[in-house]
Amino acid sequence: MSTAPTVGWVGLGAMGAPMALVTARAGIPVTAFDMNPAALEAVAPDVTAAATPVDAVRNADVVVIMVATGAQLDQVLFGEAGIAPHLGPETVVMVMATVGPVAVDRTVELLREVTTRVVDAPVSGGTARAATGDLLVMVSGTEADVETVRPLLDAMAAHAPLVGPAPGDGQRMKIVNQLLCGVHIAAAGEALALADGMGLDIRQVHEVLGTGAAASFMFADRGARMVDGSFDDPKSALDIFVKDMGLVTEAAGEASRPVPLAETAAALYRRGSEDGLGRKDDSIVYRLLGGT
Amino acid sequence: MSTAPTVGWVGLGAMGAPMALVTARAGIPVTAFDMNPAALEAVAPDVTAAATPVDAVRNADVVVIMVATGAQLDQVLFGEAGIAPHLGPETVVMVMATVGPVAVDRTVELLREVTTRVVDAPVSGGTARAATGDLLVMVSGTEADVETVRPLLDAMAAHAPLVGPAPGDGQRMKIVNQLLCGVHIAAAGEALALADGMGLDIRQVHEVLGTGAAASFMFADRGARMVDGSFDDPKSALDIFVKDMGLVTEAAGEASRPVPLAETAAALYRRGSEDGLGRKDDSIVYRLLGGT
Repeated sequence: MSTAPTVGWVGLGAMGAPMALVTARAGIPVTAFDMNPAALEAVAPDVTAAATPVDAVRNADVVVIMVATGAQLDQVLFGEAGIAPHLGPETVVMVMATVGPVAVDRTVELLREVTTRVVDAPVSGGTARAATGDLLVMVSGTEADVETVRPLLDAMAAHAPLVGPAPGDGQRMKIVNQLLCGVHIAAAGEALALADGMGLDIRQVHEVLGTGAAASFMFADRGARMVDGSFDDPKSALDIFVKDMGLVTEAAGEASRPVPLAETAAALYRRGSEDGLGRKDDSIVYRLLGGT
Repeated sequence: MSTAPTVGWVGLGAMGAPMALVTARAGIPVTAFDMNPAALEAVAPDVTAAATPVDAVRNADVVVIMVATGAQLDQVLFGEAGIAPHLGPETVVMVMATVGPVAVDRTVELLREVTTRVVDAPVSGGTARAATGDLLVMVSGTEADVETVRPLLDAMAAHAPLVGPAPGDGQRMKIVNQLLCGVHIAAAGEALALADGMGLDIRQVHEVLGTGAAASFMFADRGARMVDGSFDDPKSALDIFVKDMGLVTEAAGEASRPVPLAETAAALYRRGSEDGLGRKDDSIVYRLLGGT
């Protein structure tokens, strides 16, 4: 006898695939759909493949949605072959994509007639931590709904704090996370490009400043890629921050708070994308700021 | 028989005083001058008080200058009662103030007829680490000159890397450090003010995001003060970053590198100073960005 919920999963991108895998390997039955058949093959046989999103979520206690954008979330739920009509009032819809609070609030509103059980659970940590089940998941929702998805959180996360009672609060926390990450990556690029421009040895700059008052996770992590000049095998594509910094500035507008640094960083990421660098590693901001 | 050089010291501010003390307590004779008699009393009897800058540096092997600005550095050396005429060709002038590369280059040029022995050695780490001799000192100069000041570095620093052969390289490294610090503090303020505006619990935000991809030394350190709302007992005054971000943008202009984040942060610090908050803790940027 098991209390593990049955999971229907939509979206097996770079993050979604390892997340679904660690969930299935924790003994939780997962049936998944992705537009890309290769993504489904890559997680077989642990994760059962479905031919359509509706097939994936049929009979699921929990539906995990791990797509890339708010528009995709909308499409998956309410589009032409959307899953919403196939959900019951007890189904928990768990949004793990970073889509921003506005999109989650809208989803809750549109789902109201189908199910009120929405858990908002965006993640942070990158593909390596996704693969070992060591993500940070920022969870919001009612206690009962979060309790239902607890086995999934235990499988995927090293840390899954409840950050608020309402779906949307998880996204709000994630927005704050992305503001810091996006600004810190751009700051690392700006600092190392300036160091380069002043004739300093950027490898030494990265080493000397990496442990003191100037330290950040991103200066250590992305700074190492800037020093190595390795931008072509993206661990995190620049376009992700085009999207996420857009969510930050949108949320800041709603909250009437100024975010001048986030706006400056957002403009930098957008310029990179316009220059055709959207699929490069986000550490390419070093080059955008004149680093050689 | 001792190889410790005799030290003349000018400038005993919040950082200079503990630095002079740990140097003297390491067995290196230090004679100091400061405009403020109370500052001299506070370091007695370890540090010998001098009535004028010239008295402080008479017979010194190493002259340490730890003033606040490039203008003060100029005044101390070349002003009406300046010390330059009283130095010999063997005297090592060690600039530990953060004055920027332009000021140090100028100092080297103007000192050329007196002494060519200039060591550039700005510091990072704050007053607590200054008091325990655990600073990061970014050292540049010739090997022989750095060798002469080595006992002082051993007393003051946990880490004192040689970052370049020319005086000015230390300042260049420090500029890069300040760019990161200044942007990270402003980013922490922006992130927590947005979290506050979105109705999140900023204490939890600080806790949840403090160890992951969004982490920085400044988010941990200044973020704690923002959460506590403690701005009136400044550990580091906002006006320091008005000066230092000015040095960053000046150096970036000289190096022809864009620093959009540093410029955005600089504008924020300047606005704080114009609003009369220059002597508050720099973490007050949280309030400037709408945090409550």
